[in-house]
Amino acid sequence: MPENTMEKPNIVTCTAPVNIAVIKYWGKRNEELILPINSSLSVTLHQDQLKTTTTIATSRSFKEDRIWLNGKEEDITHPRLQSCLREIRRLARKRHNDGDPALDPSVLSLKVHICSVNNFPTAAGLASSAAGFACLVYTLARVFGTEGELSGIARQGSGSACRSMYGGFVQWIMGQKDDGKDSLAQQVEPETHWPELRILVLVASAEKKSVGSTSGMQTSVQTSCLLKHRAESVVPGRMEEMIEAVRGKDFVAFAELTMKDSNQFHATCLDTYPPIFYLNSVSQQVINLVHRYNRHYGETRLAYTFDAGPNAVIYTLQQHVPEFVQAVQHFFPPESNGGQFIQGLPVNQTALSEELKQAIGLEPMPKGISYIISTKAGPGPRVVEDPTQHLIGSDGMPKHTV
Amino acid sequence: MPENTMEKPNIVTCTAPVNIAVIKYWGKRNEELILPINSSLSVTLHQDQLKTTTTIATSRSFKEDRIWLNGKEEDITHPRLQSCLREIRRLARKRHNDGDPALDPSVLSLKVHICSVNNFPTAAGLASSAAGFACLVYTLARVFGTEGELSGIARQGSGSACRSMYGGFVQWIMGQKDDGKDSLAQQVEPETHWPELRILVLVASAEKKSVGSTSGMQTSVQTSCLLKHRAESVVPGRMEEMIEAVRGKDFVAFAELTMKDSNQFHATCLDTYPPIFYLNSVSQQVINLVHRYNRHYGETRLAYTFDAGPNAVIYTLQQHVPEFVQAVQHFFPPESNGGQFIQGLPVNQTALSEELKQAIGLEPMPKGISYIISTKAGPGPRVVEDPTQHLIGSDGMPKHTV
Repeated sequence: MPENTMEKPNIVTCTAPVNIAVIKYWGKRNEELILPINSSLSVTLHQDQLKTTTTIATSRSFKEDRIWLNGKEEDITHPRLQSCLREIRRLARKRHNDGDPALDPSVLSLKVHICSVNNFPTAAGLASSAAGFACLVYTLARVFGTEGELSGIARQGSGSACRSMYGGFVQWIMGQKDDGKDSLAQQVEPETHWPELRILVLVASAEKKSVGSTSGMQTSVQTSCLLKHRAESVVPGRMEEMIEAVRGKDFVAFAELTMKDSNQFHATCLDTYPPIFYLNSVSQQVINLVHRYNRHYGETRLAYTFDAGPNAVIYTLQQHVPEFVQAVQHFFPPESNGGQFIQGLPVNQTALSEELKQAIGLEPMPKGISYIISTKAGPGPRVVEDPTQHLIGSDGMPKHTV
Repeated sequence: MPENTMEKPNIVTCTAPVNIAVIKYWGKRNEELILPINSSLSVTLHQDQLKTTTTIATSRSFKEDRIWLNGKEEDITHPRLQSCLREIRRLARKRHNDGDPALDPSVLSLKVHICSVNNFPTAAGLASSAAGFACLVYTLARVFGTEGELSGIARQGSGSACRSMYGGFVQWIMGQKDDGKDSLAQQVEPETHWPELRILVLVASAEKKSVGSTSGMQTSVQTSCLLKHRAESVVPGRMEEMIEAVRGKDFVAFAELTMKDSNQFHATCLDTYPPIFYLNSVSQQVINLVHRYNRHYGETRLAYTFDAGPNAVIYTLQQHVPEFVQAVQHFFPPESNGGQFIQGLPVNQTALSEELKQAIGLEPMPKGISYIISTKAGPGPRVVEDPTQHLIGSDGMPKHTV
């Protein structure tokens, strides 16, 4: 079709956040529907620091669904992408058949062009699939006019994506049904609930890629007897305690549960056969630093948590951020010629007491940490109203490709 | 008392072996009696490579009990030393009161001089307390004429010492009684049972001392819910499977259980709060090397196990030793100016195929491993008949001190 007969596309752009679990998800009871063996709970990070932006265009002129991720066209036939597209279209068709007058039936047959970028480097090792699939599903729903409960669809893209559908403190209730209809995310408290809470992402120096989480959790489910016990007998109680800690803004309880649950998740990885190691020597050093810092003050002021990689995510309260950041800089001296060591929310300079340095007493690990992203809890996915922010032009194609 | 009136001491010298558990002991239900929360199983290593030698002298001229360890006088009032001395003397008194004519009652009141040395460096990180307390108890029993079941006394010196009272393959049955009378070691098979089995101790480069096993296991018992589950629900089945694998000389079953149990022990350390790390980056690399080696051959030819430190102990069969040692030398290139990289039983030279190197495909870690001790299963404690081997002279004092 010649370009001048191209029908102008309808374009929608949305953003979605990253989330970091404090009660970890590890292990599926159904691979295809992505149904977990335990419930989990996370904090949604603020999109000012970390977000995915997705633009979706529809046009009668598009011949097929296509997708570009971070400027590069990817395979649209990926099963999890197909799940999300299929489920959103099914939901739209159902609404139409149920007689929803708001839904334009002609949109159902349209093909989509999807373009998605992250504002953080993939190298940061943050689970970009959660923000990515949350953003895809949220944007698709806008395009097809199917707002409402969407976490069950996001879950079928990437399990933890369901938690990125809400801001603040979010639980993913595992559910009981075989069809997964009750395996959904739910907001526990909004991002405004605990304004003093701060989150620091400590990006460990680039390492070779470890075992991916999809295959890792499969092997764990098949081989770790400790994982089965954790899912059935430990997590249910921890979910209750964690919800109570979040509701009561009880930092000590929140922090200790967060650390214990991260450690237990990594313990089940080690109990997997062959064992999986996500924590490296830098991670171990961060863990030691946090415990010695807390011990020095006789109070739990910091918590660490690690996902399927060596990067630490630290939860703390606003007033402790400057000193802790200083401690990180002292015990992981950064490259002097490097860029900004602290990114995101500004952190005040402060001095580190000799007393604290000695109480911690670790051997510094130069360049162990590349940089810190300073952030806080934030809202769920948003529509971007400014059309200049669209990633797809009026020709229906990405504005920037690599 | 002037030296010329010194009564010539009675001197006995014995040796005892190190043992390496394949089903791990971690956690006590009674700290004082050293009663474990689960049974365990180990292989006794050959004393030609690793042993403790202990000489005990008694004399009417000795005024007090004294002890020298590796040439240095140590505090005899250490509670665990006192437990062993008390229990052996109690046993001797009981035998005498029960009318055993072989026992000279005058010996009961004699003070002892104890002198003990290891033929392996403490830096090797091998649990020298097992061999040490086994040797102490075995030698004391000779001195006081109380042979028989001694593992229950050795256990009160150091839990795993009870397993060093026998050669070959040894289980420590946890027992049920509160007084610990049924918490004893038992030989499963003698050292002659599986002559092809070989053991390689891979001594990791010197590291700062980690959490000791006594306090480590206390913290684990108090804080790890996974340890409780392991002890109660996992180990009983594994003990049965391991005994069957040993009896049937089923290397694959033996090796896989050994690796899984080592990993699970370290998983419970990570589930401890604060977490305990005994595996470092060298340990992780050895684990990867072993799994990739086995995968390359499509057969489990090697097993690793790690105690409360970073040193790997490898179990394999005789025919695989030369190639594996070559692989260790390739992936952990030793210091060229260093001493003997391979100590103990001689290992034939062999070439490493390019195919195997590539299949393993790890980045070499120079100097990650200091040296290898090559050994096999061996016998239990022995009396040394040659009087020139005594560590104590006819003056009742150590021949060598530092």
